[in-house]
Amino acid sequence: MNTLRPAVVLLSGGMDSTVLLHHVARECNGATLHALSFNYGQRHSRELQSAAFQARAVSAAHRVMDITFMGSLIQAGSALIEGGQEVPDLDTLTAEELTQPPTYVPNRNMMLLSMAAAYAEAHNVTDVYYGAQAQDEYGYWDCTPAFLERINHILALNRKSPITVHAPFVGFSKAKTLERGQDLGVDFAQTWSCYRGGETACGTCPTCVERLNAFAANQLQDPLPYG
Amino acid sequence: MNTLRPAVVLLSGGMDSTVLLHHVARECNGATLHALSFNYGQRHSRELQSAAFQARAVSAAHRVMDITFMGSLIQAGSALIEGGQEVPDLDTLTAEELTQPPTYVPNRNMMLLSMAAAYAEAHNVTDVYYGAQAQDEYGYWDCTPAFLERINHILALNRKSPITVHAPFVGFSKAKTLERGQDLGVDFAQTWSCYRGGETACGTCPTCVERLNAFAANQLQDPLPYG
Repeated sequence: MNTLRPAVVLLSGGMDSTVLLHHVARECNGATLHALSFNYGQRHSRELQSAAFQARAVSAAHRVMDITFMGSLIQAGSALIEGGQEVPDLDTLTAEELTQPPTYVPNRNMMLLSMAAAYAEAHNVTDVYYGAQAQDEYGYWDCTPAFLERINHILALNRKSPITVHAPFVGFSKAKTLERGQDLGVDFAQTWSCYRGGETACGTCPTCVERLNAFAANQLQDPLPYG
Repeated sequence: MNTLRPAVVLLSGGMDSTVLLHHVARECNGATLHALSFNYGQRHSRELQSAAFQARAVSAAHRVMDITFMGSLIQAGSALIEGGQEVPDLDTLTAEELTQPPTYVPNRNMMLLSMAAAYAEAHNVTDVYYGAQAQDEYGYWDCTPAFLERINHILALNRKSPITVHAPFVGFSKAKTLERGQDLGVDFAQTWSCYRGGETACGTCPTCVERLNAFAANQLQDPLPYG
């Protein structure tokens, strides 16, 4: 980084991708940023409102791709998707479920990164950023350094416009990502993590628990209201 | 192959994927087949009607995924997509254009195979087939054996449901694919190749020329009407 090359940043509106967006904005320092969000029928569409807010905050162009076909593609089999099974509390998951939890969406990141790479190629951008971080490795094979490496292995074959995918937080814990966000002045009240679609965050689903733990580890109070 | 494992076959309705579907149906011999087509706003939606016909011919379940978002994703930059630039005649393409022709869709096969793998995973299918063949290598980095190998490299990371993508015709010329289709009794009047969206095939776009050459090489007459 530290160049003026334009970049595409995958932005869900959650904590990790939001900090990543601000991180890339700081490092790229004036280059054109494209924030790319996906509407895939997720329960927590409030994420997308947060994404729009954060894109404005760093003057990135924001594009929301409607990929609700994903719900039918995977038969609403994931708890992340409206109409799918209930989102479980983290403390009810068995060891086997933790290897690939109910909130896993089949092959999600390969699909999203393929589309982001296509978008980047069509817009003459060579660098794509996504917010994989170390704490997701436990349950998501598509958040690992090996996954990232192999995605880049494919994209390197492109004869005219090889795209590189970067995940600068792939070795970070959520607490460390939060710390980086604090340094960057991120407004965490305008991020959304809860997997359930409620008015307030539930505080017990896997991502709420991890988020609250990250705030606790930094001795900070999460500005979001919890129900 | 030669097992009773169910399979997902990417079926555009063109010659190669149609022969592949019949080939897999023969080899899998009674296993459940899922034919998966994509509506991505292609000029030649007549392909999709041919796909439906061919899926019925082998008693495959047929699913058409609406991914017209792809047009906006890539700004209709490809000549394959309605609203994009004109489809060129093959004999007008320069050497540089042949490396990545105007009919190239950015990162198309990685997107389609990612979705096919997600579909397969959600349906407990482990094998996906697509109709890459040797004659596309000249202009499409995403039709090469290296591409296939690297796609499988990624999917192998899946902890519960690793999917394998097969492209049994990846070393075939179009003429050889046609020959295989003849052996399998494929009705080529119910396939569609022309890139242009006309009532009859144009006979001059890259895929028409390649198709006609394949018929000529087999000393056969193409049953399609040409305008």
